[in-house]
Amino acid sequence: MKKLSVLILAFITFSLQAQQDLFNEPALVSPEINPDKTVTFKIKAPLAQSVSVSGSLDGENAFAPITYSMEKGEKGIWSFTTPVLPSELYRYNFIVDSVRTVDPANSYVIRDVSNLSNIFLVEGGKADLYKVQDVPHGTVAYRWYDSPGNSKKRRLSVYTPSGYENNTEDYPVLYLLHGIGGDEEAWLGSGRAAQIMDNLIAQGKAEPMIVVMTNGNVYQDASPGNGSSGFPKITFMLPNTMDGKFEETFGDVIKFIEDNYRTSGTKADRAIAGLSMGGFHTANISLNYPNTFDYVGLFSSALGVPMNNVTSKMYENKEAKLKQQMKNGYQLYWMGMGEDDMAMIYKGNENFRKEMDAIGMKYEYVETSGGHTWNNWRDYLTTFVQRLFK
Amino acid sequence: MKKLSVLILAFITFSLQAQQDLFNEPALVSPEINPDKTVTFKIKAPLAQSVSVSGSLDGENAFAPITYSMEKGEKGIWSFTTPVLPSELYRYNFIVDSVRTVDPANSYVIRDVSNLSNIFLVEGGKADLYKVQDVPHGTVAYRWYDSPGNSKKRRLSVYTPSGYENNTEDYPVLYLLHGIGGDEEAWLGSGRAAQIMDNLIAQGKAEPMIVVMTNGNVYQDASPGNGSSGFPKITFMLPNTMDGKFEETFGDVIKFIEDNYRTSGTKADRAIAGLSMGGFHTANISLNYPNTFDYVGLFSSALGVPMNNVTSKMYENKEAKLKQQMKNGYQLYWMGMGEDDMAMIYKGNENFRKEMDAIGMKYEYVETSGGHTWNNWRDYLTTFVQRLFK
Repeated sequence: MKKLSVLILAFITFSLQAQQDLFNEPALVSPEINPDKTVTFKIKAPLAQSVSVSGSLDGENAFAPITYSMEKGEKGIWSFTTPVLPSELYRYNFIVDSVRTVDPANSYVIRDVSNLSNIFLVEGGKADLYKVQDVPHGTVAYRWYDSPGNSKKRRLSVYTPSGYENNTEDYPVLYLLHGIGGDEEAWLGSGRAAQIMDNLIAQGKAEPMIVVMTNGNVYQDASPGNGSSGFPKITFMLPNTMDGKFEETFGDVIKFIEDNYRTSGTKADRAIAGLSMGGFHTANISLNYPNTFDYVGLFSSALGVPMNNVTSKMYENKEAKLKQQMKNGYQLYWMGMGEDDMAMIYKGNENFRKEMDAIGMKYEYVETSGGHTWNNWRDYLTTFVQRLFK
Repeated sequence: MKKLSVLILAFITFSLQAQQDLFNEPALVSPEINPDKTVTFKIKAPLAQSVSVSGSLDGENAFAPITYSMEKGEKGIWSFTTPVLPSELYRYNFIVDSVRTVDPANSYVIRDVSNLSNIFLVEGGKADLYKVQDVPHGTVAYRWYDSPGNSKKRRLSVYTPSGYENNTEDYPVLYLLHGIGGDEEAWLGSGRAAQIMDNLIAQGKAEPMIVVMTNGNVYQDASPGNGSSGFPKITFMLPNTMDGKFEETFGDVIKFIEDNYRTSGTKADRAIAGLSMGGFHTANISLNYPNTFDYVGLFSSALGVPMNNVTSKMYENKEAKLKQQMKNGYQLYWMGMGEDDMAMIYKGNENFRKEMDAIGMKYEYVETSGGHTWNNWRDYLTTFVQRLFK
């Protein structure tokens, strides 16, 4: 390390000139995950009147963000230590005198719609699945596919498992859909889908499969910042969301994947799942492409959202389509729901299950603690993918 | 839009429950790029004593960040409007009562070493190359390659131009290296390499080529957050940086690319370039793999950094290796340098050119305004790739 230090010292002199602001390192460590699995946050804000930390800090099934006041100590450094936290991927922010900010000492952030939050991971339990482990890693590619149904090229993300590039076998495909406000990067960011797949495949618990993560907002060509709209103000209030257009043009996605990847192109090798709006999309895509998917997963599916004035062939003749889907058969129809999810969605799913019950259509329903959260969606993905293609 | 509104209103009720904090949209617009190309920043901070905005806000060749005081207006909203800004990709932060923070109304951030900065783009000039335009888009893939020389699998980024997947032709390859504190994501983030390539190829100004962006910190397997070290505190003080190990094991990268992509595998179809530390790496790789690259690009190359106590075969017998490289021949040896770069680096390059002059080795040297900045490196990439493989 000595010879390193000499070399690095020469570079440190750069920082005095503030060239490109490269070497301005934060002095504090925050968050600090303590040996007892409590977590300490720190921020230097000598002039602030009040500082708090807000986030999914109440355990594994956070419903709404919890906010804790931080305490001012020496040199204007505010700090707070959480109770013991279970193994999970956590999100948080600081609020400094009413200004929401990220932790200046933590460079790891995730964007959810328009909000940036810091993240950290408490190891030693289920979050080990969300960590990059020393196992074979798949490839993540951002690709553009032609969507004639939307008259544009659109971006999607594709996970191919380790080994895909070096053999000639066909692989099964999971189409994995995000919720409102998300995009083709949501499952890779908040969802940790690449890490979950790498780890479950390495453990022999999931079959090697291709995972296709689409952008369900057909108004966009790509996630904000990666599309032709430049760097727009981010909003979930986009036109053509949940109006049938995504479902109607989903065939463009399937065609692209089956033209560009080694797949068997059979129902037995296709699965589809989604969270919230993506669960709603999933239900409708599986109804309207009725002999296409052997595996269907609805994660906190946004069934029950009022669809006033929305007309689409995708949403018509639901009972007849359900009956046809049942008749055609499938291997698994899986539904996950948090017991504290929104009433509208909870009841919407209850009603959907009643419709299925009424015609004798089989499904598995799993109710967990927690609400409409990424904590649950990572769990549901972990459960669901272990059931596929076996 | 009316039917959309009804649907969306139902979703807005979610926000009252703060489910996953999804719908907490900032009320302000910031930054606002005005029709006259001035830019207005705003932040609501009613309790703050002082707020400033700091960044590369002085034009196209920012040397060091400029800081402007913001003015407090009604409702505790602070604002500042810049002078007219030339077309460029800009970075900035807010400083609220001495706390460095990102703009809560701007979700677009780039990480440089451990610092997050917001970005925005002023169109209507050279920054149009940095924007996603309505042109055919290449694929960006994150892949893991085996590096026996480092006894680990390592992550790299690969840009393949539009059409690559749908023909059987061989493509030329540009290996593109980052600076100290960067990683395999630096050229894609701050460098906008995918957009620059898409746009120049679409305009017929650059040949379709594969661009391979490596991680030059052999101590890491991947960029922070994407490797097995989890979410470490980010620092540029990593072991084995600029000690010859990256150069020595670069053959592992070339082997992976030529085994996994359609390339001619000839010198005529290989280029290598890098910025700062990556320029230093580039010079040494091209010396130690002497008949491998027909195109070499040094962008603000970190030549002249004291190498006390560093011993590596990579750095020995430089004059003999230079002579051999000259004798073997090449198409282009290109060097770009900002007139305001650090003296150590500026002089290091001057000395290197003298060594080349002394043996009659040809190169092109371009000196631009500005310093050791991404503004220059995006420019240099734009210039360099138009010269390749023609």
